[in-house]
Amino acid sequence: MRPSPSTCRTRGSGTSRKITLNNPQKRNALSLTMIQSLQKDILHEVDDTNLRVIVIAANGPVFSSGHNLKEFTAAHGKSYHADVFNACVKLMTTIQTIPVPVIAQVNGLATAAGCQLVASCDIAIASDKSKFATPGVNVGLFCSTPAVALARAVPKKVALEMLFTGEPISAHEALMHGLVSKVVHEENLEEETMKIAQKICQTSRTVVALGKATFYKQISQSLEEAYRLTSQVMLQNLMLRDGQEGIEAFTQKRKPIWTNSVE
Amino acid sequence: MRPSPSTCRTRGSGTSRKITLNNPQKRNALSLTMIQSLQKDILHEVDDTNLRVIVIAANGPVFSSGHNLKEFTAAHGKSYHADVFNACVKLMTTIQTIPVPVIAQVNGLATAAGCQLVASCDIAIASDKSKFATPGVNVGLFCSTPAVALARAVPKKVALEMLFTGEPISAHEALMHGLVSKVVHEENLEEETMKIAQKICQTSRTVVALGKATFYKQISQSLEEAYRLTSQVMLQNLMLRDGQEGIEAFTQKRKPIWTNSVE
Amino acid sequence: MRPSPSTCRTRGSGTSRKITLNNPQKRNALSLTMIQSLQKDILHEVDDTNLRVIVIAANGPVFSSGHNLKEFTAAHGKSYHADVFNACVKLMTTIQTIPVPVIAQVNGLATAAGCQLVASCDIAIASDKSKFATPGVNVGLFCSTPAVALARAVPKKVALEMLFTGEPISAHEALMHGLVSKVVHEENLEEETMKIAQKICQTSRTVVALGKATFYKQISQSLEEAYRLTSQVMLQNLMLRDGQEGIEAFTQKRKPIWTNSVE
Repeated sequence: MRPSPSTCRTRGSGTSRKITLNNPQKRNALSLTMIQSLQKDILHEVDDTNLRVIVIAANGPVFSSGHNLKEFTAAHGKSYHADVFNACVKLMTTIQTIPVPVIAQVNGLATAAGCQLVASCDIAIASDKSKFATPGVNVGLFCSTPAVALARAVPKKVALEMLFTGEPISAHEALMHGLVSKVVHEENLEEETMKIAQKICQTSRTVVALGKATFYKQISQSLEEAYRLTSQVMLQNLMLRDGQEGIEAFTQKRKPIWTNSVE
Repeated sequence: MRPSPSTCRTRGSGTSRKITLNNPQKRNALSLTMIQSLQKDILHEVDDTNLRVIVIAANGPVFSSGHNLKEFTAAHGKSYHADVFNACVKLMTTIQTIPVPVIAQVNGLATAAGCQLVASCDIAIASDKSKFATPGVNVGLFCSTPAVALARAVPKKVALEMLFTGEPISAHEALMHGLVSKVVHEENLEEETMKIAQKICQTSRTVVALGKATFYKQISQSLEEAYRLTSQVMLQNLMLRDGQEGIEAFTQKRKPIWTNSVE
Repeated sequence: MRPSPSTCRTRGSGTSRKITLNNPQKRNALSLTMIQSLQKDILHEVDDTNLRVIVIAANGPVFSSGHNLKEFTAAHGKSYHADVFNACVKLMTTIQTIPVPVIAQVNGLATAAGCQLVASCDIAIASDKSKFATPGVNVGLFCSTPAVALARAVPKKVALEMLFTGEPISAHEALMHGLVSKVVHEENLEEETMKIAQKICQTSRTVVALGKATFYKQISQSLEEAYRLTSQVMLQNLMLRDGQEGIEAFTQKRKPIWTNSVE
């Protein structure tokens, strides 16, 4: 019922970890238990130097249907509802604050908080049969938290049509509008996702961690602030052991050997 | 000469209202009179519980050519010019602050403040023969107010090429870049727009109003602020009568019956 | 080895200047010398009333490969590295602060700071064989400064996949995602770029300068602030000689004659 993590060594120097949502009977609903379990799996040994990238996939035709609406009945009470939303926001934020990239590998329908999960990952690859929707409005619960991630991924008009009608967009529309960065045939989804994961496994963990944290910091800044920050970060990056090794390897025309040291 | 509003009951529980720009001889120019008339028509009985969505359409081959340039001659004087710009900004802002979604149904050319009107609606559906331009630069009046809405709808480079050259983009380019959310054949435009309007008519007015207001509030916030706000809104939404009814109907596998009560 | 500027009078009333990166053996790398030379060429007689638009092109199959990595070895020292980044940021910012539009005419590969240069221009036209990448991660130097311009041009997910994998996107992907505003066949690139440049040459320099400066100011503001600013700017634009001339010419159905006066 809970996500099943599986670590697989790739051909690169680092390791990717795959977490598979595995409750297809419940359409991989993000119940409080599922959210907490996913949060735990994402943070599991996330500081392991060998870990370079996390892939979130799902079993069954539905990637995730979002919150378990049965948890929102009056019987559960307001404080339980608040726990669910807080845990969900924490999960979405965690994905962007951990030091390794997180890839959503989507093969099916992702709705509401499930769509938010895709929008919150750093990278998203989808099969061409995937669909994305925010249909909360149909059950009287507007997808306002999913809208936060959605509105930062796709144009405003696309987001609002999805939010007001609840109607799904196709994988190709999701690609055109920026919700996913690649769409492939279903039979190639695993392979294409692993290609990207393997590329990341060949990079320096320290350099990627610095780059990821900086990206999310600069994105909400003014151009001037963003350049002030990133110019400093470039110098800091060059001073890293892996920064120096990378440049040295380049000038010596050899493959770099990363230490993944934080210095 | 002025917009002609027409209320039409849809199959859903709510009502959509269509406002048709009806001055094709003047290319539906947004003269001060037209702007004030449109503003009035949009606000007309906007608090009626049955009203769920407003559609803005236009008669003739030009959706709207923007401001009436004859109102900008020196003879009219600076204070009149200021009245025109202030009324226009008020109109564009009103569209986003009223409690029901506004759909632009575009079949033809939308330029300058006419393009801004499309960009300012919540949703925009266009026929494939539609075109969009910001050609003010050709008459020495850079489309700086339209640019506000345009730059928040399409990528910066697309906006700047439109603004610096005045050249139109096609409906398909507008879709690719996010200025409209759907493009259909001219003969299907009315039907496809009404499909979306009818979907919205079947939702709870209160829930949509809360969702719309929250969307525009969170969009300019940082991720943290946006999640803080929307988590609270989700709880508030669940406490609404229609929030409780929606969840209850879902668990009882029946259609919800909205009260559209503000509580 | 340095950019070669060439001024060519176009059919319009103004002049476009073309700056061609001309160090194909070094893949038009943005060495400190190249950056400073490009900065100088951009600012060269930029206040000449006849100048209306600058085009940045490149000789050879690589538009620009970004920084010269040999300048980043430990031997050069931190203060030299800082000089390179500061000069680069200054260049990218200058492009947006000068009073005339800058068009990137891209025919080939643009990587790292080369990709940032394209993203920083106001308009970008690319041949269909062009590609864009931010591969710094491969040499242990994450493209954090290029990410500033990239993240403001394309959707977040596209930017992050480029940054984390270093893999290039095609010209058509760049168009879909907003990094360039037009893609044409290689044999038409020069002609299509000049068409846009010539359109701009026919506009008022003063009006375009006011519009460009305002565009970049309003883009990071809230909707309310942006409309307050631009409403004032519209009035200011109308009071310009060229604003009055444009409206007058329009009402008299004749071509405007711009003074390009700053009043």
